[in-house]
Amino acid sequence: MKTVDLNSDLGESFGAWQMGNDAAMIEVATSVNVACGFHGGDYDTMRKTVELAKARGVSVGAHPGYRDIHGFGRRPFYGMNPSEIENLVAYQIGALQAIAALVGYKVTHVKAHGALSNVACEEESTARAIASAIKAVDPNLVFVVLANSKMVQAGEAANLPMVHEIFADRAYEDNGNLVSRKKPGAVLRDPKQIAERVVRMVGDGAVVSVTGKVIKMRTDTICIHGDTPGAVEIARGVRKALRDAGIEVAPFRKAS
Amino acid sequence: MKTVDLNSDLGESFGAWQMGNDAAMIEVATSVNVACGFHGGDYDTMRKTVELAKARGVSVGAHPGYRDIHGFGRRPFYGMNPSEIENLVAYQIGALQAIAALVGYKVTHVKAHGALSNVACEEESTARAIASAIKAVDPNLVFVVLANSKMVQAGEAANLPMVHEIFADRAYEDNGNLVSRKKPGAVLRDPKQIAERVVRMVGDGAVVSVTGKVIKMRTDTICIHGDTPGAVEIARGVRKALRDAGIEVAPFRKAS
Amino acid sequence: MKTVDLNSDLGESFGAWQMGNDAAMIEVATSVNVACGFHGGDYDTMRKTVELAKARGVSVGAHPGYRDIHGFGRRPFYGMNPSEIENLVAYQIGALQAIAALVGYKVTHVKAHGALSNVACEEESTARAIASAIKAVDPNLVFVVLANSKMVQAGEAANLPMVHEIFADRAYEDNGNLVSRKKPGAVLRDPKQIAERVVRMVGDGAVVSVTGKVIKMRTDTICIHGDTPGAVEIARGVRKALRDAGIEVAPFRKAS
Amino acid sequence: MKTVDLNSDLGESFGAWQMGNDAAMIEVATSVNVACGFHGGDYDTMRKTVELAKARGVSVGAHPGYRDIHGFGRRPFYGMNPSEIENLVAYQIGALQAIAALVGYKVTHVKAHGALSNVACEEESTARAIASAIKAVDPNLVFVVLANSKMVQAGEAANLPMVHEIFADRAYEDNGNLVSRKKPGAVLRDPKQIAERVVRMVGDGAVVSVTGKVIKMRTDTICIHGDTPGAVEIARGVRKALRDAGIEVAPFRKAS
Repeated sequence: MKTVDLNSDLGESFGAWQMGNDAAMIEVATSVNVACGFHGGDYDTMRKTVELAKARGVSVGAHPGYRDIHGFGRRPFYGMNPSEIENLVAYQIGALQAIAALVGYKVTHVKAHGALSNVACEEESTARAIASAIKAVDPNLVFVVLANSKMVQAGEAANLPMVHEIFADRAYEDNGNLVSRKKPGAVLRDPKQIAERVVRMVGDGAVVSVTGKVIKMRTDTICIHGDTPGAVEIARGVRKALRDAGIEVAPFRKAS
Repeated sequence: MKTVDLNSDLGESFGAWQMGNDAAMIEVATSVNVACGFHGGDYDTMRKTVELAKARGVSVGAHPGYRDIHGFGRRPFYGMNPSEIENLVAYQIGALQAIAALVGYKVTHVKAHGALSNVACEEESTARAIASAIKAVDPNLVFVVLANSKMVQAGEAANLPMVHEIFADRAYEDNGNLVSRKKPGAVLRDPKQIAERVVRMVGDGAVVSVTGKVIKMRTDTICIHGDTPGAVEIARGVRKALRDAGIEVAPFRKAS
Repeated sequence: MKTVDLNSDLGESFGAWQMGNDAAMIEVATSVNVACGFHGGDYDTMRKTVELAKARGVSVGAHPGYRDIHGFGRRPFYGMNPSEIENLVAYQIGALQAIAALVGYKVTHVKAHGALSNVACEEESTARAIASAIKAVDPNLVFVVLANSKMVQAGEAANLPMVHEIFADRAYEDNGNLVSRKKPGAVLRDPKQIAERVVRMVGDGAVVSVTGKVIKMRTDTICIHGDTPGAVEIARGVRKALRDAGIEVAPFRKAS
Repeated sequence: MKTVDLNSDLGESFGAWQMGNDAAMIEVATSVNVACGFHGGDYDTMRKTVELAKARGVSVGAHPGYRDIHGFGRRPFYGMNPSEIENLVAYQIGALQAIAALVGYKVTHVKAHGALSNVACEEESTARAIASAIKAVDPNLVFVVLANSKMVQAGEAANLPMVHEIFADRAYEDNGNLVSRKKPGAVLRDPKQIAERVVRMVGDGAVVSVTGKVIKMRTDTICIHGDTPGAVEIARGVRKALRDAGIEVAPFRKAS
């Protein structure tokens, strides 16, 4: 029986500001990535999010981003050297581990956020610095990597446990890269189409590109979003379709 | 043979701004308390400071403060509840632990900074929240408490390893409290007087108050400052005087 | 014909985070107080808010708060001296004036936010520092003061134009102070009761306290909130009831 | 008689952290550029700096930077659109104007800081956004532009008063650009050589490039640094050499 994980970015509220629909997404996801205070989240939100995840038995990972709360970690900081990236990432993982300790829970994985992830997909030194930080903090932490990105090699070089991630609602180019958000059709909107597509991705271990090409792609976890009411519906549809197709939905690493 | 530790607050530089004289103080101190990015310090400074400490064999502790970089953690946040204090403190300890992991070193202790320490000295709920955070993150971490403060009971209640701290250069009231900085004579300036006084404190296990009263006081670690060139001289004088008096100067907890 | 202003705090979104219902409140309010980036808001939100206000012909004021984005300016900074308060307030007023200049609009007034307002209501030195900052930046700016607070004397001493503010949905003590939010009945919830009460406040120039005592109170502007859907309904009800009672609803100072 | 201005970046201290040698530089410079709290400085430092400048009769300008206190405004934010740049710059100018009003002084000019300046030198849309912000806030403010950069055209298009700036201690390429700091010889160190070179630049209206080519360059103001003791000496040497050569050293715009 095939198994796949559904991961979602949670804990992105900040101080007095709410973001996302954590209560709904925790019902659908099997793993959540928790913002660590640099692009979103704060120590109180982190605790609340880990408590929520523990109550639901959902695995918790760190979701480190650039230090840019005003820009929500979506602006690249090209000038950072690998040592600074290591420090940036390690700091955030450790912070979440300690918050999880308050709750009596464990961090299982790490997934880079926003612009840090984008840069790491293309720039090997950044990808390696992230892997290096994870390894130093705890070599058993799972590195969530975007399929076909520089992060894959970086994780392999560091000998880290890895899971490959695809996006439920994004179109792919023939070379396996995501279609840029600036192009039409980059983001899929139809819940039924998305659900069918995800089932095929997991069942076949392949993605169909925009031109119809079938690209082999390892799929351990599927990123689902909850930013809009429609997104929650899509996520629920994906989960239901996977189950209906006999695919088990479960975390890639069970929290202990 | 009596033993005492000399602790110093380090790693308070921030981004492009330098603070303190870490290179000089690391030669005198046996334990250092590292700012964790909330009132001073940042992830790069933290790493540099832990590297420095490791190279010198000096023990490293977390020095958590309020989230107030602009005010250097010196302004009290009275409105914070115990749960928020726990989160605040745990976050910072975990962040430093992860940075230390990058360096291959261990965090041995925790000492609250500035206004957080002042509030915890007087407000039991804050002192207990700090102790609770330490215990959750790692019950083997040593809690550095100001002698005669609410932190002592909080540490005892949490059953944490504790060391009692006194100040080399501060005058004490008859009740064992520090003389307020607003009163004349609160801060001692004469290196010779300070050195003699410290030797007596450690040798006798007692402090002489401003009125001449001898107050029993456990003295495990002495806080030394390095903010001014004169302060470094005082610190060196204290270290030398202790050795000359046959008192061993060593960390209260050796880093492994 | 009697006239009263309805003022509302707007522009409290921050970066990627939304807050409040600015589009709805701009339809009800005649003056808006714009967060200036210290407790909420940012330079982009400020511009958008001023553009919205200009399009609706609603007056725009600065809403300066403590430098505490994480705590939304709701935590008091007791340690700040009057000179620091002056700088804090002047900085924020000037920032909004320049943003308004980009839009081709003018700032007409200043109202302190959250904990800064609370402290200024009770501590004369803080109230005077706010008044002093306003006067230095532009002595024609209207100082919005809470009726019966220390801000009234501070504004008079500085010879600033002033408007007295009351709250539509808050209960008052016999001495004219607001009933503490910690006490039951501090906040009124019934739209009809609130609307009737406001009409009476403006018509009679008096508030009825929790014990039924009639307290004379100058009422130039009424603070309305829009944080919840219910709050918007209350605000609309207040506006309608005032009009029905023949009271003109208009800004205390028309933007030019 | 020829005249030239000496400008220096001041007020870069932040909270508890000191930076630079403002007291020494204010004796040498005729115009100072004040950090506005985004990359350095804060409202208290701004006031202190304006007070210092007023006492010495030195002109004061805004020195806006990217919102990046941790990176001291030295990291480019490529993702910002022109409208955001306008808001960023206007906010900071207005903030300084209001602080100057507290002191009874006037802001005379605007000079972009660090990475914002670098990006504006090469990217016309950023340069135009800066000019547009200045013009909206006050069209009489002088725009300090790097000679031969995109800022020149942007200032001309906005019809702003402009002064052209050169660097005392930087080498120039044949095309009039600064030699990159990554290349050897980019920064000159010899006080005597620098002083002679500056006199020639102002006297001849030309710079000699690294290959010996004479490049015509308008020189209204010379940027002098004070970050190191050596830098202060260089700045003093430049001032003395200019006077000895009969060139008047005076602000390009006298503060009123």
